[in-house]
Amino acid sequence: MRIISADSGAALLNDRFDATMIVAAAAVLVDSPYRLAMKSITEPIFSKIADSHELIVHELELCQMLLKETGADIVHLDMSFGSLPIEELSPIQLSNISGKARGYLLKILPKLRKMAADIKRTYDVDVLAIGKDSVPVRIAELTAGAQAVLYSAEKANTEKMTMRLGLPSKCYARKLENGIVLHSLAPAEHDIAGFAADVKQVLKEVTISELLNPCARGFRALEFTANSTLK
Amino acid sequence: MRIISADSGAALLNDRFDATMIVAAAAVLVDSPYRLAMKSITEPIFSKIADSHELIVHELELCQMLLKETGADIVHLDMSFGSLPIEELSPIQLSNISGKARGYLLKILPKLRKMAADIKRTYDVDVLAIGKDSVPVRIAELTAGAQAVLYSAEKANTEKMTMRLGLPSKCYARKLENGIVLHSLAPAEHDIAGFAADVKQVLKEVTISELLNPCARGFRALEFTANSTLK
Amino acid sequence: MRIISADSGAALLNDRFDATMIVAAAAVLVDSPYRLAMKSITEPIFSKIADSHELIVHELELCQMLLKETGADIVHLDMSFGSLPIEELSPIQLSNISGKARGYLLKILPKLRKMAADIKRTYDVDVLAIGKDSVPVRIAELTAGAQAVLYSAEKANTEKMTMRLGLPSKCYARKLENGIVLHSLAPAEHDIAGFAADVKQVLKEVTISELLNPCARGFRALEFTANSTLK
Repeated sequence: MRIISADSGAALLNDRFDATMIVAAAAVLVDSPYRLAMKSITEPIFSKIADSHELIVHELELCQMLLKETGADIVHLDMSFGSLPIEELSPIQLSNISGKARGYLLKILPKLRKMAADIKRTYDVDVLAIGKDSVPVRIAELTAGAQAVLYSAEKANTEKMTMRLGLPSKCYARKLENGIVLHSLAPAEHDIAGFAADVKQVLKEVTISELLNPCARGFRALEFTANSTLK
Repeated sequence: MRIISADSGAALLNDRFDATMIVAAAAVLVDSPYRLAMKSITEPIFSKIADSHELIVHELELCQMLLKETGADIVHLDMSFGSLPIEELSPIQLSNISGKARGYLLKILPKLRKMAADIKRTYDVDVLAIGKDSVPVRIAELTAGAQAVLYSAEKANTEKMTMRLGLPSKCYARKLENGIVLHSLAPAEHDIAGFAADVKQVLKEVTISELLNPCARGFRALEFTANSTLK
Repeated sequence: MRIISADSGAALLNDRFDATMIVAAAAVLVDSPYRLAMKSITEPIFSKIADSHELIVHELELCQMLLKETGADIVHLDMSFGSLPIEELSPIQLSNISGKARGYLLKILPKLRKMAADIKRTYDVDVLAIGKDSVPVRIAELTAGAQAVLYSAEKANTEKMTMRLGLPSKCYARKLENGIVLHSLAPAEHDIAGFAADVKQVLKEVTISELLNPCARGFRALEFTANSTLK
């Protein structure tokens, strides 16, 4: 079963470790044994946290782009509604969600349903609201996070300032010769990871240090300093 | 404290990774330091998922069999009701459980209470509804899972078809010379495992590959192919 | 950001693995990368479980003592109320907590708010009800647990009886030349630990064995026997 999925991930953190901006989004194609992306599309986002409820629409657009390119058997979206097809989600199913979040969902639901219907018609593929249960969603999250490391390194280098990036939940970053990989640290996910190729060689321009987010157990952060500003 | 416990575990999965059948059940005797079963009784089940609510009765029967053989100080059942003795569970305590599950429980509760009363009278041993908090229940789950690997390998070999088995939550399988062991991958459970002896040497007849269940984070699966059908 | 935090941790267990007494409390000062305490104050508690709801007041007193000594930017308390400052906690915010726990909280809330106001006035530092989300609270828990190992070893040696100590959630103890360290086994916390220096050399007087708490998954326990009673 070939699965396409997308997620946004990693956030810039301020001095108090509050997330201020979501950095990247990624769509991934995953196949058995479901450990890594076979193919991915990633994008810088730098979207304000306040607008993050609308990212899901953009994530589905990324899925659509990848679907056009590679095909797949099913699409996993990062919304947790018992793995129901998006097309079957109605305002009634959202009734047990609380105030504000429900308002946001109701606002984007028509758009999501229309896109899911298009995908079904064009590719005969269902879009499932499987969210936190999906391994491909997790791989998309880690892939977006890996890409966010590169974007943050580039930004730190260009703007000559220290950037602090909060990684996705329960993972750590490892530098390779040609890129960066985010390995999951969640239980039973030791072989799940997301990769981003460092085409522009930005990692060589910055010094990275790892720390724990003291205000969010299970979340690690990276601090980037442009080498040109050191000494 | 010598504890007897039982659980059913591991499920055959269809092409969409839906569980179709529960494969095995096991009762185990566990003593300090509570890492492995000292003794176990296992059984093939191949029970439809739809009937799985009745497995708990059979699990208690397996406990009873093992209790007769080895004795114990207490029995841990895979039902999570605040570690209350089964005998003290009344329909009132089940009132905060939702519709369908409650109906199933009410149906089997009289039988469970009668069996628990028998065990109390005969052996002076309590049967606790401790469920997810119990380490012996976890060991029973992994032991049932290990046995399920053998049953699935045998079935794949006999029926000359590929079988896909979903392992219990957060564990992986490791082949030994004389059997199979399921190691827990849950946090702080690195030394908990379940073992099944490969008396019939069925593991030699099949090729096993591991994958992640893409629709259920934390769950791994195995695919068995009879060696006789390869090439 | 320099953070002071406190927690009580580790419990004596009876033969049925019920917690009977909380053993130790610790306040810690933690700074980036937030893996270990830079400085700590620890205390034997041996407080009955029934009185444990009042420990939070004592924990804040320990924070105050450490604050006086070292200063800090913020205080993290082991209460989980969305990281709100304690001063802003009102009985209304507690309205969704159930019966008994709510009664306890209402009883200690005035005291906590007064102490938090004192800390704010004296040091211009907020006291946050961040609880389970805080890494420094976790480090305080592990530091209290490490100290509890020493207190339990000493007690086993003095009273010539076997003591059984339940460690904090998801951690294990490792003996060093000069003390004891509790390493976290929680996901993504592999580099978080708490340390206690064995100044009185009590660890040499006892034999320690590790077991799993069979009635509480994720919790490990230690049994201490005075060497003088062996043989």
